[in-house]
Amino acid sequence: MNPIDRLSEIFSHFPGIGPRQARRFVYYLLSRDQTTLDTLVRSVEDLKRETSQCNECMRFFNGTGSLCSICADTSRDRSLLMIVPRDADLDQMEKSGSFKGRYFVLGGSLPILEKEPERRIRIRELLTKLAREQSTLREIILAMNANAEGENTEDYLRQALRKGDTFAESGDNSPASSLTITALGRGLSTGSELEYADPETLKNALLHRTK
Amino acid sequence: MNPIDRLSEIFSHFPGIGPRQARRFVYYLLSRDQTTLDTLVRSVEDLKRETSQCNECMRFFNGTGSLCSICADTSRDRSLLMIVPRDADLDQMEKSGSFKGRYFVLGGSLPILEKEPERRIRIRELLTKLAREQSTLREIILAMNANAEGENTEDYLRQALRKGDTFAESGDNSPASSLTITALGRGLSTGSELEYADPETLKNALLHRTK
Amino acid sequence: MNPIDRLSEIFSHFPGIGPRQARRFVYYLLSRDQTTLDTLVRSVEDLKRETSQCNECMRFFNGTGSLCSICADTSRDRSLLMIVPRDADLDQMEKSGSFKGRYFVLGGSLPILEKEPERRIRIRELLTKLAREQSTLREIILAMNANAEGENTEDYLRQALRKGDTFAESGDNSPASSLTITALGRGLSTGSELEYADPETLKNALLHRTK
Amino acid sequence: MNPIDRLSEIFSHFPGIGPRQARRFVYYLLSRDQTTLDTLVRSVEDLKRETSQCNECMRFFNGTGSLCSICADTSRDRSLLMIVPRDADLDQMEKSGSFKGRYFVLGGSLPILEKEPERRIRIRELLTKLAREQSTLREIILAMNANAEGENTEDYLRQALRKGDTFAESGDNSPASSLTITALGRGLSTGSELEYADPETLKNALLHRTK
Repeated sequence: MNPIDRLSEIFSHFPGIGPRQARRFVYYLLSRDQTTLDTLVRSVEDLKRETSQCNECMRFFNGTGSLCSICADTSRDRSLLMIVPRDADLDQMEKSGSFKGRYFVLGGSLPILEKEPERRIRIRELLTKLAREQSTLREIILAMNANAEGENTEDYLRQALRKGDTFAESGDNSPASSLTITALGRGLSTGSELEYADPETLKNALLHRTK
Repeated sequence: MNPIDRLSEIFSHFPGIGPRQARRFVYYLLSRDQTTLDTLVRSVEDLKRETSQCNECMRFFNGTGSLCSICADTSRDRSLLMIVPRDADLDQMEKSGSFKGRYFVLGGSLPILEKEPERRIRIRELLTKLAREQSTLREIILAMNANAEGENTEDYLRQALRKGDTFAESGDNSPASSLTITALGRGLSTGSELEYADPETLKNALLHRTK
Repeated sequence: MNPIDRLSEIFSHFPGIGPRQARRFVYYLLSRDQTTLDTLVRSVEDLKRETSQCNECMRFFNGTGSLCSICADTSRDRSLLMIVPRDADLDQMEKSGSFKGRYFVLGGSLPILEKEPERRIRIRELLTKLAREQSTLREIILAMNANAEGENTEDYLRQALRKGDTFAESGDNSPASSLTITALGRGLSTGSELEYADPETLKNALLHRTK
Repeated sequence: MNPIDRLSEIFSHFPGIGPRQARRFVYYLLSRDQTTLDTLVRSVEDLKRETSQCNECMRFFNGTGSLCSICADTSRDRSLLMIVPRDADLDQMEKSGSFKGRYFVLGGSLPILEKEPERRIRIRELLTKLAREQSTLREIILAMNANAEGENTEDYLRQALRKGDTFAESGDNSPASSLTITALGRGLSTGSELEYADPETLKNALLHRTK
């Protein structure tokens, strides 16, 4: 395959990009000067070298070392662990400034009827981490998207945490027995109108009413 | 004005309808047989005659009498009053089956900088009702839309309830002094994705997390 | 059925309106004063009485008489007949000020596989009219929407005009034999971008290029 | 800047991509294995080396040499030149299979009030090419997008071709004097509905009606 087609193919796997926009990316690159292309090449080459994956939360971060700045921060509450689908979700939650515990990045979410969950999400890494932190952890917050895929992932996680099957070998009890498992609250998100809200959302909005 | 233009004009004031769709409505009516038009005419004529406005919650209901079925239902919790912008919001909340108190339909909401709030919403009727029910009421739930207009209306209502100015004449205390005022809870509404959620929504989703 | 439900039902058959918006229309009417409702009732009552359907083009027009202002206008070119799906299409074409012939309003268009075309569109009335105007008519312009339903209707009309079956009884020839049948030109409509244009549109845009 | 931010910055300049999606691209790359990243790097490195820009039409093409396959194809009509904004437009027109002449890729289009047109589009290269091909060329087709920017670019090109100022020095006549300049035809593009068509589109659809 020639580089135009090869690059189009690569770009068409980028999240949210179809074949047509992928090709526009290639034409865009062709119309740039060599310096821009060199910067792109160098940045991609540097990307993995200068970026590390945190051993604890599995997020990618700039720099070297085994721990990201959040996991290394001793002032964060070690008793709270929020499980998010992706790095971008963690970024958004951090930007809100409202969470002071630590995170675990699942690496994705599970479509309904997914046959090989353990290849889609970091469930093994999660269970291992939970076994390791049994003594300090008091609450796991399942922060999934409020859609079918998110709910499916939440169901899967609750089951996996209850069974805690990977712990059998080590003789440990299921982590769930000593932990509270919670999920992000549902209610009216910004922009919602009552008339178009679903019963579940209204029920939760009523349940969680605030002074 | 001829009836085509007159009807187009009337339809163009229907909620969400522009002049072009209004005219399509007229052409649609012209293409119907006389029976359909007669039914429309008769239904509009009957509308106000066979529909009443509830003296308590101000909603419109089918039938005669001064009380709607909800306000007449003695099994509903008289200590809880939910204030909703419109009849359709009340319908939607009832469909969710999650609220067992009573309602008050405000009749609209307040745009930012609205100069004559009392002409837009039933604030006088509300304050009168609250004064009347001081002894039984324990909580008022402000169930506004989660948008700028809804928040503006909520601010206005909180202020009006605090001042309770209309009660001065009757020598009553402000209703707010003896009441808890709450608002519907914010959080992830169905369909929300973490990555696109605003900080306020995330903060509330975290605050209201559920087991 | 009570008038609220009856009116909701009627409005839900208006073009483009679902049950939820239909109910909002009813609540809107309930919140209007009696004068507005009376005006609506009177306008609907007047509608058919003060509106006529043109014997020639089948459009609805304000006033009495058997001919609309366009068909009565002797300065319009009687050799050109444009067939449009609906009254609103005729309005839009007149607004463009670019057509000086006369019209025929078909009353709709034909979905693919429609089993009873003669109940959906005024094909009989059209063929009768064409037979009557054989001597003056030189061109029929099929002005259908540029979508599947429009193309299907165009195919049906071409076939019907070619057969001209209804003319058999009167011993006339098919109208198509003495007429040119044309269709509106395809090309780039305002707002089109080349990159997203379909092959058919590009082919026609090239074919009809202008100086 | 670290490679995550640097890459986000680069991707955010890709056509149609904002900062948020740019960052998702980076996270996507981080989650791929090293082989995928190596392929991306190699493809970008190869891109300019294995891709050439055609000396005649200015499009980018896979391979080496000074002429692209279309410009080198002696069976294409040398008397017809279609001027398109971008490579992707040329691709789309070729896919339609309806044009047998040659192309010139302008490299963009001109926003209203653009102060330096010659930096946005290849107007100098175009005028030079036209001077060179004066003897064979009979028609220039301005194939611009049917929007404000496209119309502005068409106006600019017509003026530039009329003045043909760069030819003054060489003593040549303006190319426009010996050439027909046309533009793609306007009409109903696929999917258009009469009721929503603008007057210009209707006028052209009528003008270009087909048998």
